[in-house]
Amino acid sequence: MAQQNIYDNEIFFEGYKKIRDNEVNANNLFEIPALFSMMPDLTGKTVLDLGCGFGEHCKRFVESGAKKVVGVDISEKMLEVAKLENSDDKIIYLNMPMEDISHLQEKFDIVISSLAFHYVEDFEGVIRNVYEMLEEKGVFIFSQENPLCTCHSGGNRWTRDENGNKIHLNLAYYGVEGERESVWFVDNVKKYHRIFSTIVNALIEAGFTIEKMIEPLPTEELLEKYPDYNELLHKPDFLLVKVRK
Amino acid sequence: MAQQNIYDNEIFFEGYKKIRDNEVNANNLFEIPALFSMMPDLTGKTVLDLGCGFGEHCKRFVESGAKKVVGVDISEKMLEVAKLENSDDKIIYLNMPMEDISHLQEKFDIVISSLAFHYVEDFEGVIRNVYEMLEEKGVFIFSQENPLCTCHSGGNRWTRDENGNKIHLNLAYYGVEGERESVWFVDNVKKYHRIFSTIVNALIEAGFTIEKMIEPLPTEELLEKYPDYNELLHKPDFLLVKVRK
Repeated sequence: MAQQNIYDNEIFFEGYKKIRDNEVNANNLFEIPALFSMMPDLTGKTVLDLGCGFGEHCKRFVESGAKKVVGVDISEKMLEVAKLENSDDKIIYLNMPMEDISHLQEKFDIVISSLAFHYVEDFEGVIRNVYEMLEEKGVFIFSQENPLCTCHSGGNRWTRDENGNKIHLNLAYYGVEGERESVWFVDNVKKYHRIFSTIVNALIEAGFTIEKMIEPLPTEELLEKYPDYNELLHKPDFLLVKVRK
Repeated sequence: MAQQNIYDNEIFFEGYKKIRDNEVNANNLFEIPALFSMMPDLTGKTVLDLGCGFGEHCKRFVESGAKKVVGVDISEKMLEVAKLENSDDKIIYLNMPMEDISHLQEKFDIVISSLAFHYVEDFEGVIRNVYEMLEEKGVFIFSQENPLCTCHSGGNRWTRDENGNKIHLNLAYYGVEGERESVWFVDNVKKYHRIFSTIVNALIEAGFTIEKMIEPLPTEELLEKYPDYNELLHKPDFLLVKVRK
């Protein structure tokens, strides 16, 4: 199985870097706060970050007291930025697909993965490896695109009124799992659609206990400031899951 | 809080009875097989059925070896049928809202509820009571309408092509939870929309461990026989959850 390394595509990388540089984006407003809200006390802990990208989370884990952080990413370009902007004696960056993490011959207190799992075909295989690499009672927290986002849509994703406002999501084939090709800066970004129950059952079958799920939604306060995020009331962008070994 | 007793409405009751009498319906093809696939061995067990309706499940539990079954339903009309068609020395039918089950001063090995929870406003309260009424390691299994069904839709639920075929679901305000009025035989059937993560978190907070979730989908074989159920590939009708105390 060939692992997808879309982030080393020049056009994708530049497009992605641009939205990450903008401080008002869905990651900063919804995904990151939800992710960190589920994080246990990191003091003296070891952390493995799957799909660490630019390493911002790795750096933050060290600042929060983690004694050792391993950041894994398939993209060399991402890790170049990580090493420039977020290096630390306590962080090791490894350039490999997360499907190969069992090469790492050690265990961690906490494994996290931020917005990478919807690119992974063998979800079951990866979470089995995560289970093996966690210490007893270790915590695994991940975020991914919400299953309502990884669905097909009937042509256009949204139906709009005459003023261009989004009236409803066009949701097609939620029940058909597997590969989806989508366009995000470049054509043929491959994502893998899994329904809610498949995600939950895979985690349970791997041996995990589900502790919490979050589908981040905008508050009224936030909507006053950024009315465009009203669309998240139709369809949350993210799903976050916290489980324990 | 007034509990909803829509099943005692004459028109609703007759309409409902008619579709239940038809053997080819979504309950028989999808919900009931999924529900019973999650059922533990009932031999010598005590079972509480919340929203037991006509009592078909209660009867089946006894036939499967349960030593005692209590069926609770808010609707007198439903229980009249239950007593006529599905009575047994081992079954007790109780006419009360499931919000009041704590009046029952005993514990059960298994609690089940089939397609009733989307009518319940105080989901958290009911599952807290279920937790209290279960024996240690007891199992709680329930089905409800899938959260993709209890959503609002943008006017029509479906967008169709020129031949009337369903192209996609019109999904609106998945992220806005609470009361929905829908029309099912009669106006103003009240349902309560909860998103996936809310359901999961409420169960965990009540003390349960999630064991399995099912969103039943049609097999290719079934679709050949009943092509109309193709729409379930866009949107499963049901969500089933198995948890343990």
